[in-house]
Amino acid sequence: MNGTRQPIGVFDSGIGGLTVVKALVEELPSESIVYFGDTARVPYGTKSKSTIVKFSLENVEFLLRFGVKCIVIACNTSSSWALPTLRKYFKVPIIGVIRPGALAAVRATRNKRVGVIGTTATIRSGAYETAIHRVDPRIKVFSQHCPLFVPLVEEGWLNGSVCLEVAERYLHPLKRERIDTLILGCTHYPLISSTIHKVLGPEVVLVDSAQQTVTEVRGVLMGTDALSNGNTRPRYRFFVTDEPSHFNRIGHRFLGQVVGSVERVNPV
Amino acid sequence: MNGTRQPIGVFDSGIGGLTVVKALVEELPSESIVYFGDTARVPYGTKSKSTIVKFSLENVEFLLRFGVKCIVIACNTSSSWALPTLRKYFKVPIIGVIRPGALAAVRATRNKRVGVIGTTATIRSGAYETAIHRVDPRIKVFSQHCPLFVPLVEEGWLNGSVCLEVAERYLHPLKRERIDTLILGCTHYPLISSTIHKVLGPEVVLVDSAQQTVTEVRGVLMGTDALSNGNTRPRYRFFVTDEPSHFNRIGHRFLGQVVGSVERVNPV
Repeated sequence: MNGTRQPIGVFDSGIGGLTVVKALVEELPSESIVYFGDTARVPYGTKSKSTIVKFSLENVEFLLRFGVKCIVIACNTSSSWALPTLRKYFKVPIIGVIRPGALAAVRATRNKRVGVIGTTATIRSGAYETAIHRVDPRIKVFSQHCPLFVPLVEEGWLNGSVCLEVAERYLHPLKRERIDTLILGCTHYPLISSTIHKVLGPEVVLVDSAQQTVTEVRGVLMGTDALSNGNTRPRYRFFVTDEPSHFNRIGHRFLGQVVGSVERVNPV
Repeated sequence: MNGTRQPIGVFDSGIGGLTVVKALVEELPSESIVYFGDTARVPYGTKSKSTIVKFSLENVEFLLRFGVKCIVIACNTSSSWALPTLRKYFKVPIIGVIRPGALAAVRATRNKRVGVIGTTATIRSGAYETAIHRVDPRIKVFSQHCPLFVPLVEEGWLNGSVCLEVAERYLHPLKRERIDTLILGCTHYPLISSTIHKVLGPEVVLVDSAQQTVTEVRGVLMGTDALSNGNTRPRYRFFVTDEPSHFNRIGHRFLGQVVGSVERVNPV
């Protein structure tokens, strides 16, 4: 495949996937990116498998219009439930965030006790547990859904007493299980990692899957001889399904820099 | 209009509109009801005007298939932004929850200082302020959006220290303004009214628009000679766009009784 100038497609239920874009830009600075955030229908994490799969299929169809050479599902919820179906329907390589995060946790744990936090849908899927046990069935996995973390991050209450008390409620059962590694199974959670560390202690390793996912993307592109040769300036395009103002306003929290021009599109 | 056997249509972004259904069932027990909850795209309160209007148009179109004699927008966000457009497009009488709540607050206030809490979209619309000032321009209106209240209610954390601290943060500015009346401008908020009372004091009147809205519905049906004559057993039908399990599970919190059979439909 002569994919050197084709963009990488990234989709998310909303804005959180920009953390994956940030890692892509840092690790693969020659690659162009098309980002799709389904901000009119966000969140996915409170919804059912069939709805998540339906929306994800539509998102992939949108990205394929741009001739993307691979697609990254930056959304943990969508990766958990929709990846097998998407791989069945489409030929383009599709990379989710679950396996990379699971592998990182398997490498990090010393006592073989790993915690996973995520949205209700992600935790219900059992996807992390399955991915971890595929590598090492002896690892004990403790899961906890944390529905208030995303609203807290969107509200910007990243530190402070409310965030700390919510984190204590959610994480106390994991602490009691003496986990030494915690998978942050949602794109929003890295923004409250300092609060999570306060509850669990500094010695617990927090796994943010963005970095690991980019490593897998690089591997896929090398394997298909599709890495950019760096001869052209990369281009970044952002599409959302609701008005772009909110995305523009808080996007920098996730991307680490101001988000460029954002275009609105109708859901497929 | 011979509307006696036609149902009343009710729509909401999700589950919260069941509080309005509860009031309808209590006050107009002979009326049949068709309820539509857009649970695949919930919430509306974090989204833009144009998206809210688009979804609301689709919801009305769905309800019209059932020959409804009037439509109640049980969602404050949708009432705030979409009501004028809906009334322009459709001939069926459409009743929102904003004006009834505003009128109740105008009647309740003694010191002419009224607070309004709601979703970000509702507060941004300024709809309550406009509706209040249409009746009494001397009333001072103090508004506050409370994005964490809906997730807290959905999580079931209705009392306790987290809910109390979040309420204190949001309501402190209103308390300082010495409001004597507070409009609960979102269907979820009545469920945390005891916490809100704890923060504001028991003397502040909390206005829940469901009751007032039903009074307006009765007026509209009387005006068009469309009240049910009570000769047939009322029928209640519930439709949602995501899988019904969550709706079934927590619906009783809003409806005050177990929700009967719920059918899933595709968004229009």
